[in-house]
Amino acid sequence: MEKIRVGILGFGKTGKLVTNEFLKEHDFLVKWVIRKNEESNHRYASKVLGYEKECGELFTPENITKNFNEEYPVDVLIDFSSDAGVDLYGKLVKKGVPIVSAISNYSDEGMNKLKAIAECSPVLYSPNITLGINVLLVAAQILQKIVPHADIEIVEEHFKGKDEISGTAKKIAKILDLSPEKHINSVRVGGVVGRHEIIFGLPNQIIRLSHESISRAAFGQGAIFAARAVLDKGPGMYTMENIIAKMFSENVPVY
Amino acid sequence: MEKIRVGILGFGKTGKLVTNEFLKEHDFLVKWVIRKNEESNHRYASKVLGYEKECGELFTPENITKNFNEEYPVDVLIDFSSDAGVDLYGKLVKKGVPIVSAISNYSDEGMNKLKAIAECSPVLYSPNITLGINVLLVAAQILQKIVPHADIEIVEEHFKGKDEISGTAKKIAKILDLSPEKHINSVRVGGVVGRHEIIFGLPNQIIRLSHESISRAAFGQGAIFAARAVLDKGPGMYTMENIIAKMFSENVPVY
Amino acid sequence: MEKIRVGILGFGKTGKLVTNEFLKEHDFLVKWVIRKNEESNHRYASKVLGYEKECGELFTPENITKNFNEEYPVDVLIDFSSDAGVDLYGKLVKKGVPIVSAISNYSDEGMNKLKAIAECSPVLYSPNITLGINVLLVAAQILQKIVPHADIEIVEEHFKGKDEISGTAKKIAKILDLSPEKHINSVRVGGVVGRHEIIFGLPNQIIRLSHESISRAAFGQGAIFAARAVLDKGPGMYTMENIIAKMFSENVPVY
Amino acid sequence: MEKIRVGILGFGKTGKLVTNEFLKEHDFLVKWVIRKNEESNHRYASKVLGYEKECGELFTPENITKNFNEEYPVDVLIDFSSDAGVDLYGKLVKKGVPIVSAISNYSDEGMNKLKAIAECSPVLYSPNITLGINVLLVAAQILQKIVPHADIEIVEEHFKGKDEISGTAKKIAKILDLSPEKHINSVRVGGVVGRHEIIFGLPNQIIRLSHESISRAAFGQGAIFAARAVLDKGPGMYTMENIIAKMFSENVPVY
Repeated sequence: MEKIRVGILGFGKTGKLVTNEFLKEHDFLVKWVIRKNEESNHRYASKVLGYEKECGELFTPENITKNFNEEYPVDVLIDFSSDAGVDLYGKLVKKGVPIVSAISNYSDEGMNKLKAIAECSPVLYSPNITLGINVLLVAAQILQKIVPHADIEIVEEHFKGKDEISGTAKKIAKILDLSPEKHINSVRVGGVVGRHEIIFGLPNQIIRLSHESISRAAFGQGAIFAARAVLDKGPGMYTMENIIAKMFSENVPVY
Repeated sequence: MEKIRVGILGFGKTGKLVTNEFLKEHDFLVKWVIRKNEESNHRYASKVLGYEKECGELFTPENITKNFNEEYPVDVLIDFSSDAGVDLYGKLVKKGVPIVSAISNYSDEGMNKLKAIAECSPVLYSPNITLGINVLLVAAQILQKIVPHADIEIVEEHFKGKDEISGTAKKIAKILDLSPEKHINSVRVGGVVGRHEIIFGLPNQIIRLSHESISRAAFGQGAIFAARAVLDKGPGMYTMENIIAKMFSENVPVY
Repeated sequence: MEKIRVGILGFGKTGKLVTNEFLKEHDFLVKWVIRKNEESNHRYASKVLGYEKECGELFTPENITKNFNEEYPVDVLIDFSSDAGVDLYGKLVKKGVPIVSAISNYSDEGMNKLKAIAECSPVLYSPNITLGINVLLVAAQILQKIVPHADIEIVEEHFKGKDEISGTAKKIAKILDLSPEKHINSVRVGGVVGRHEIIFGLPNQIIRLSHESISRAAFGQGAIFAARAVLDKGPGMYTMENIIAKMFSENVPVY
Repeated sequence: MEKIRVGILGFGKTGKLVTNEFLKEHDFLVKWVIRKNEESNHRYASKVLGYEKECGELFTPENITKNFNEEYPVDVLIDFSSDAGVDLYGKLVKKGVPIVSAISNYSDEGMNKLKAIAECSPVLYSPNITLGINVLLVAAQILQKIVPHADIEIVEEHFKGKDEISGTAKKIAKILDLSPEKHINSVRVGGVVGRHEIIFGLPNQIIRLSHESISRAAFGQGAIFAARAVLDKGPGMYTMENIIAKMFSENVPVY
């Protein structure tokens, strides 16, 4: 079987973790990684991350030549860089190559550019790309329909330094049509990586859906899942939530 | 709106809790309750349970007259009695009247009788009829398909006196094709009513689905839900799990 | 062994649960119960609660005769009535008889009266008299001293109808010198009886102390524990927290 | 204030994490680190761990000269190496210098050697040196005395690969005199670093004490705590559990 060739945009703290997960995955081959600046003199991302093998040739945005997308073709592009990354897509990959973007916040302009690209290529965009969170998002929406009279509360726990309310918790509140001020409980303690819990309360029983991140490497696993999912899609905008919702539909048990 | 008339078979500890829930539900009218023996001289179940109103006329199996199902017609029959209850269905209700049975264990003979009745009437049969447990059963099956590489463990907590492994935990293990000996962890402490947790472990994240019973009145709420669900069904055998699975299908979010 | 004779003041919802726990406890004998009004024509509290035996003769405050404390002597008085109950103590029991009060809130005047009584009798006063909560209160204070750099957060879960922040959570915040606005997270869902969790967060580890009430009968068990503890005490004011703290001191493991 | 000079024995996976924690602690100065073999050509542990500063000169056991303990004096020795480490103590530090050992399992011979050293030096030995676990150990013993009728269960969650039952869970079972076969519930899922929960069940309430490790760096924090604790002690054998128990005694709230 031929390996899936992947190009990665972004080699910061999260970008490195994501690259590392792709390097460990047997059916993917990391062709190149775009990083902002030359912080080390290693030529390969794999070397920076302590591997013996030479994978993921490193380029800076300035290094990208005119024919880059022909000389270094990939099957899927992963973006963990920043809002500005979208401007490089055209140079990096040909039209039609699937793109996975996990940028936290696009400006309106950036989002419009992304949508324009989605007219020719499949684009999966999810700021929180972990599998578990998207499973919670979908399951919670279904539960709310099944038990409309349940009281729903969201508890999120994160490390002490995190000032603002978790964006994921806000997203959960939004899709469940709950006031974030009233229904999100933010607990900040120690070094907790991240935990989200959705509680459905009924008079005589309680259902809890929870997701704990053990390590940010979960983003990498999410990106791998997303890359596989987007490979055989046609042009258009997708989200992890869409993909997971579709998998829910296809996997409801039949008796 | 006309109320839904309900007949209840069984007035033991659970039967009383279930009757009480139906008495509190505005769109149901408890017509009669069949109890084993005349333990009090109250004529109405509502009186035994401390209500002022007179609802749920009490009968013993011996009291049931030949024309009972014509004289005391109901829209749905709820059975929280025992394996033997099935023999009374014909006397209590006419063919076609929906039946909800929450009997724990039928003998083969009892189950065959139930199936025979299901040829003419809609019969919903679920030993654990709480809403939350059935939501867990369905959600867990879908998750296992979405993350087939997850490690799955079941933890069940119950009151100290409960000797055997929870039947619900065994059911969860069975539908997920897990060895109950290896994957069910039974914790017995104090007066815990009942808690089931299904843990999905991935290298960098954990998803937990849990259900806690606060009171056995949850069975009553489940029976009400089941009664509504079965009212407009055609003849056949149904389970809470079926009904919930169907609701999952119908309520997957569309974007 | 002679049984400990107990008199109970208060026969509302909680008073009944408390009386019931004392009735089940083998080394206690419920002599009488004072209730506000004659809501039933039973003469004994035990009868109201469904027992065959005749225990806990019922009196209203108006029934209490001048020589009541000589005619109906008890070894300990339990008060689950209201602020006004303190005015009856003198009539109900002789000076020196130990008193357990679980009144939620005394007025300044009521508290002064209680303190005056404590000059001659041992008085144990605790608005939340459950064993577990007081264990948490003591353990949390010790932990805060051992790990002074930990972030501490309080999560309390209660039933939907509970409007205000849990008084127990406020108490926890107060003894740990935490701002209740910032550090108490109040979750309101379904029929949760009551759960308090104190989270100690450190950079690489988290300690959680939690207490769940399964039933309000826990107040009765607390009162029994308090009654035993106060029996051999001299005059003075005590709290459950004091008693538990002393038990901590006496039971620290020695190696 | 002069810094506390520390020597570390062991620079494997855990040894590195521990060294890193000491490097970050302002009042400690890592003088040297003994590692098994020369795996890199860095001269300082700090350099291996990515610091600019030069701290923790690296030696192999073969490098240790005759006058090492005079030329490279430290105030405390930390051992995260192996059973064999004890043979080097004499060469590394003078008699009387406090020692913290977190070796998992000593042979009888090794333990005897350690005890011999403890005749002249304060030796703190704890296989699980995390603060939180030792807090749980002490608190659980006290609780068991306060509520002797509680049912106690232990739940431990660890990563999938961990085959045997957690040694810490066994230790908890032992000090609480519980059969490990009956009362330890071992859950193995995904990448869970480590979680221990001790559940105290009473008829109407449940108390839970839990400890979660977020990262193995918690061992380093424990070693720092232990080093501080042992500095002003006289010769003898100590454990984290002892130290924590003593802190419990000293910090029980007084009213």
